[in-house]
Amino acid sequence: MQTPISAYKRLTYYRKKSMIPDKVKEILKKDGIVAIATLGQDGPHLVNTWNSYVRISADGRLLIPAGYMHRTEANVAFNPEVLITLGSSKVEGLRGAGTGFLIKGKAAFITSGPDFDLLKSSFPWLRATLAVTPESFTQTL
Amino acid sequence: MQTPISAYKRLTYYRKKSMIPDKVKEILKKDGIVAIATLGQDGPHLVNTWNSYVRISADGRLLIPAGYMHRTEANVAFNPEVLITLGSSKVEGLRGAGTGFLIKGKAAFITSGPDFDLLKSSFPWLRATLAVTPESFTQTL
Repeated sequence: MQTPISAYKRLTYYRKKSMIPDKVKEILKKDGIVAIATLGQDGPHLVNTWNSYVRISADGRLLIPAGYMHRTEANVAFNPEVLITLGSSKVEGLRGAGTGFLIKGKAAFITSGPDFDLLKSSFPWLRATLAVTPESFTQTL
Repeated sequence: MQTPISAYKRLTYYRKKSMIPDKVKEILKKDGIVAIATLGQDGPHLVNTWNSYVRISADGRLLIPAGYMHRTEANVAFNPEVLITLGSSKVEGLRGAGTGFLIKGKAAFITSGPDFDLLKSSFPWLRATLAVTPESFTQTL
């Protein structure tokens, strides 16, 4: 199912259907911070959320509550490609304790409907759901 | 010394001399993961290190051991501007528990001399020191 392939590729899982690597799910259960990079006309921008805030939709997207993230939203409108990193020193990685992933995907801001409502119940302050459809997961640590 | 100024600016500390905000130093003492974004000709790239790996030089630069980070190095040669985020749920932030910072700075890869030797003793696997001269620190959480 999750087929690792050679060198760089050895560590990269390409998305098939609603697949999120189990290690990523494990990381999301641990305390930690997530970084989300976007590219706009003014250059790259980086924002954070907590591991514990990220939800996985039934079809394998990452759903992230956006409280502010105005510049990220503007960047995504310009270029939907996002890079996400997350990790935990408490999950076993490639070289012992600690693992991290680089996720490439395409993002959208959603302000109504089921993807919004799902998060609204847990995060009453959210103004939008940042929904990321992952294209690849690279284990970096 | 650390003068917070209005709205966005309220949260942003501009660098004066060798100043690193105390909150950033506190975060670096906690378990967590750091994200480093660079921009190359192929677009943005994101890598990670651990909070515990970051050292602060006497003149207030962030010194980060680079084991791989080849694409980051290539990007920095193309454009030295980097964005760094770090945070900890264990340090008090703007809205209670948990804080994070966005750091903008300029980066260089250093492969010999004191900045290299300083890290080499702790990280025998490093191939270079990624030295970041911070220009601003924005507390985001």
